Amino acid sequence: MKIIHILLLFTLLSFTISHASVNDFCVADLKAPDTPSGYHCKPLANITSDDFVFHGFVAGDTKNSFNAALTSAFVTDFPGLNGLGISAARLDIAEGGSIPMHTHPGATELLIIVQGEITAGFLTPTAVFSKALKPGDIMVFPQGMLHFQVNTGKGQATGFLAFSSANPGAQLLDLLLFSNNLPSELVAQTTFLDLAQVKKLKARFGGRG
Amino acid sequence: MKIIHILLLFTLLSFTISHASVNDFCVADLKAPDTPSGYHCKPLANITSDDFVFHGFVAGDTKNSFNAALTSAFVTDFPGLNGLGISAARLDIAEGGSIPMHTHPGATELLIIVQGEITAGFLTPTAVFSKALKPGDIMVFPQGMLHFQVNTGKGQATGFLAFSSANPGAQLLDLLLFSNNLPSELVAQTTFLDLAQVKKLKARFGGRG
Amino acid sequence: MKIIHILLLFTLLSFTISHASVNDFCVADLKAPDTPSGYHCKPLANITSDDFVFHGFVAGDTKNSFNAALTSAFVTDFPGLNGLGISAARLDIAEGGSIPMHTHPGATELLIIVQGEITAGFLTPTAVFSKALKPGDIMVFPQGMLHFQVNTGKGQATGFLAFSSANPGAQLLDLLLFSNNLPSELVAQTTFLDLAQVKKLKARFGGRG
Amino acid sequence: MKIIHILLLFTLLSFTISHASVNDFCVADLKAPDTPSGYHCKPLANITSDDFVFHGFVAGDTKNSFNAALTSAFVTDFPGLNGLGISAARLDIAEGGSIPMHTHPGATELLIIVQGEITAGFLTPTAVFSKALKPGDIMVFPQGMLHFQVNTGKGQATGFLAFSSANPGAQLLDLLLFSNNLPSELVAQTTFLDLAQVKKLKARFGGRG
Amino acid sequence: MKIIHILLLFTLLSFTISHASVNDFCVADLKAPDTPSGYHCKPLANITSDDFVFHGFVAGDTKNSFNAALTSAFVTDFPGLNGLGISAARLDIAEGGSIPMHTHPGATELLIIVQGEITAGFLTPTAVFSKALKPGDIMVFPQGMLHFQVNTGKGQATGFLAFSSANPGAQLLDLLLFSNNLPSELVAQTTFLDLAQVKKLKARFGGRG
Amino acid sequence: MKIIHILLLFTLLSFTISHASVNDFCVADLKAPDTPSGYHCKPLANITSDDFVFHGFVAGDTKNSFNAALTSAFVTDFPGLNGLGISAARLDIAEGGSIPMHTHPGATELLIIVQGEITAGFLTPTAVFSKALKPGDIMVFPQGMLHFQVNTGKGQATGFLAFSSANPGAQLLDLLLFSNNLPSELVAQTTFLDLAQVKKLKARFGGRG
Repeated sequence: MKIIHILLLFTLLSFTISHASVNDFCVADLKAPDTPSGYHCKPLANITSDDFVFHGFVAGDTKNSFNAALTSAFVTDFPGLNGLGISAARLDIAEGGSIPMHTHPGATELLIIVQGEITAGFLTPTAVFSKALKPGDIMVFPQGMLHFQVNTGKGQATGFLAFSSANPGAQLLDLLLFSNNLPSELVAQTTFLDLAQVKKLKARFGGRG
Repeated sequence: MKIIHILLLFTLLSFTISHASVNDFCVADLKAPDTPSGYHCKPLANITSDDFVFHGFVAGDTKNSFNAALTSAFVTDFPGLNGLGISAARLDIAEGGSIPMHTHPGATELLIIVQGEITAGFLTPTAVFSKALKPGDIMVFPQGMLHFQVNTGKGQATGFLAFSSANPGAQLLDLLLFSNNLPSELVAQTTFLDLAQVKKLKARFGGRG
Repeated sequence: MKIIHILLLFTLLSFTISHASVNDFCVADLKAPDTPSGYHCKPLANITSDDFVFHGFVAGDTKNSFNAALTSAFVTDFPGLNGLGISAARLDIAEGGSIPMHTHPGATELLIIVQGEITAGFLTPTAVFSKALKPGDIMVFPQGMLHFQVNTGKGQATGFLAFSSANPGAQLLDLLLFSNNLPSELVAQTTFLDLAQVKKLKARFGGRG
Repeated sequence: MKIIHILLLFTLLSFTISHASVNDFCVADLKAPDTPSGYHCKPLANITSDDFVFHGFVAGDTKNSFNAALTSAFVTDFPGLNGLGISAARLDIAEGGSIPMHTHPGATELLIIVQGEITAGFLTPTAVFSKALKPGDIMVFPQGMLHFQVNTGKGQATGFLAFSSANPGAQLLDLLLFSNNLPSELVAQTTFLDLAQVKKLKARFGGRG
Repeated sequence: MKIIHILLLFTLLSFTISHASVNDFCVADLKAPDTPSGYHCKPLANITSDDFVFHGFVAGDTKNSFNAALTSAFVTDFPGLNGLGISAARLDIAEGGSIPMHTHPGATELLIIVQGEITAGFLTPTAVFSKALKPGDIMVFPQGMLHFQVNTGKGQATGFLAFSSANPGAQLLDLLLFSNNLPSELVAQTTFLDLAQVKKLKARFGGRG
Repeated sequence: MKIIHILLLFTLLSFTISHASVNDFCVADLKAPDTPSGYHCKPLANITSDDFVFHGFVAGDTKNSFNAALTSAFVTDFPGLNGLGISAARLDIAEGGSIPMHTHPGATELLIIVQGEITAGFLTPTAVFSKALKPGDIMVFPQGMLHFQVNTGKGQATGFLAFSSANPGAQLLDLLLFSNNLPSELVAQTTFLDLAQVKKLKARFGGRG
């Protein structure tokens, strides 16, 4: 039937477009190199529903010094996010635990409280913006801001995080300052911390120098 | 102490920058007109921690024909999101209910399953990408794709949504086609639906013509 | 002459830059994988004037059920458009024909009327924006909006389309709903269409289920 | 009927979103100041179908020294384009006429030949990319490139132009060099043109100095 | 002369476009509110050459505790930068001085060494990238990275900085951690610093709590 | 110690993210093809501090016809800039020399005067914005504008340039018009230059035709 002509046209058009489109989706081929805009696209022929679903957004193990765990669903975990400007992570903090000061250079973060009470905040040179949050609350941390989350309630606290990038980055301040081999004197000079404090934390966080 | 000089320099610099920066944050002044990049920024002097927190991310009332409810945290609900490229919504679907076919012209959507089972999917001209999702699962719906969510489990299903825009838009297909005054014959001609079907749904969804 | 030195500097500089520049142009290598920002660039040495010209922007064959034809000049047809944020298509609608409801998830569309009369419009949940257009008229359809074009005049109608993306996508609503294997019951549930209507259109548009 | 609840929810949601959305559309309020992303949005209540249609895309008067005319449909002519990344213009060149060398700093240009023959091209430091174009041909001029169009056929030539910006700018080289008050000696020094040539063209194009 | 017609057309076109263009330039009206894309544009009629020139890019006074000074040319200092994605600052560090650890959430930084020797570096969780730099050297600090500059030579060191944003922000780590009223115990908990260290630095940097 | 667990988590997370991140940095692999967003990223394992430092930002040789030299630090010279939206160049102009009219299609330029006096300006169809600049002055040239720099002082003049793109392009007007094989008659027709002037400059700048 002649309908096939135009359908075929649109289907081929769409198929060709879908095959080519950077606008519909571009599931990441994580084996190929990265580019500033994201990974190469897997061929459409290899794409299935599973490419758009991430399993494993489950509670992490909080039995550690921070009493906290972070389970990420970034593009490297979930290739279907490639080029789509969004990602997620799950935060579990045991009673008394916290996620220490950190930044996401590449993204704004949304924190949705699922369970418990989390006191969270971000810092600017002139002010700290901080609240005690409960289920029903959402807090936003603008891109690049230094921020923290602390379980200030009873029992476990859980939050779901969303980011405005497929690959937000996660930089923990203590690792930046104390886990590498920048000389302790230089760390002290550029942070105004006591040299003894620096050496003590370098020992704790695996740094040298 | 002389430290005040440089501190003052950095503080003033930072304060001036923060006051001016479109890069730190720009809490929306919803009373002023919109622009293509977002709302005007409230003056820094008026900004408090409360601008970065949204309360009310709670279950909506699902006692309606769809047996579903959507609670939004978009920039118009949560002015702190202005210009930050992210927003959220909460989805509650009672047993047997669904969110009908819809698109977000302005954003990619992430669905994080919180409770129950939701079968969700998006459509392309050549394929449907669809999965039954349970807690621990996340699904991504690329920007502009027509998609749906159906409660295919027992009891209530809940999901948290994140969007790659502060104002993703939400366009329900039935409202687009049947709730306005586009003449029924024209709707039928451009959708290949039977005229009787169009008239029936126009009556249901409040359209005229 | 010493002028050669500086000319050579600028030429080499420009040549090196042109060879490398993502800012001048990046003619698509359609044989290599896509990335979120577009295709890989063909080497400059292989670029000729022909890479920047598309032939074949001619009337399509409208003898089909829609009585319409779409001739595309997207990046996959015209590699010189790669990364440049623009593309085109030609629309021919025979008398009484139409382009059914469709969206371009990735781009805004401009319709320039060349011949005849086309009634076109796009839909929002609260309003339909629609006009009868004649030569001398241009209409804009913002990105992602569901829209249609109908020949409401005598004889053939022709329009030239421009898009704000090199690869706008084209998603015909009937193909999205009725040409795949999403179960008819699910389509009915999520569109409020009668099951019989769904089955009838699935048969027409080649869907199963 | 309870359907009203959810419909009302979606309608209000959509209405609120549409009212607020920078993502659906933002018809320009040309009386208010501009911003880097575009004009302020007219209130939704004032938007009609006419905001999305431009009339007057008609042949210009080519009886002038260039034997050419340009009719623009940029955002300042067509406020509905605001923030949408696209605009258009119509080019009419009488026999023997031309559009002299010019650039669009803000956009890539597509030229669709409608009638006649136009030889068009753009320049790079190492090459000129140029073709004689006929109806059925499209040529792309990447953003910022110096380019020209000449009627090299019989009778009038007409082209439709599309741009990858709502406000592409249009800078004619002769106006840049010869219509202002930059001293002739400085123009000569920085272009290597003979002083006499500069003075002659300044006289022609209304410059002083 | 008829030339006036087309010249007038282009001039008016250009003038109108220039008046309206967000693409040519948009000198900031710093008295009006900010938007996510930048400030409102001053009317073209009020624009002079002085809007595009910044005076005062001179050595700052380094007689302070850091023995360093920063002189900024950001959009708030230099309104002509508005919307143009670039800004600058001048860095002067006396012998033995340094700019302590800081970030620019909104921009990548380039450091061009003008005089003396500056050891500079940025930190990632897994590595520090750091070099001793001399005149002839440029170093890049990607957006949002924590970085420092230390004068490790004889006499004064000077560098010119460029940023990939008109308003990069400047956040000094010590001010973020120690100059506000976040409770000392919370700072200690989220940084693993000793409480005594925190209190000591809060006293130094003007914080309370 | 259990701290290793969470540290390892963050380190691996960060390492994985850094390895993958398009948001931290993406040092260019110049041997692989380019894409619209930039070059492919070198593997993190191959990245050292040297990737973020450019040597050779030194005075160029001004003994040529222009009496000027340009030393570039663009991404093709300095791969660490890839995807970061910034680059630099150094300008040296001997007494009486100049950089002739040119554009950077891809970037806004900042000129920081280091030594001597440079008169610089950019042209629009309606005005020239031009100033005599001395050390302490910065001038901005918006993207795509035709501009020039002339040494109007005594002795050598030096400036440092920054660009809002990693690959701004550099197009010298005389090379565009006179160094290729566009027929002289066509150049004359589209610039209103005398044919003799065109031929003379083609001879000077190596063009044919």
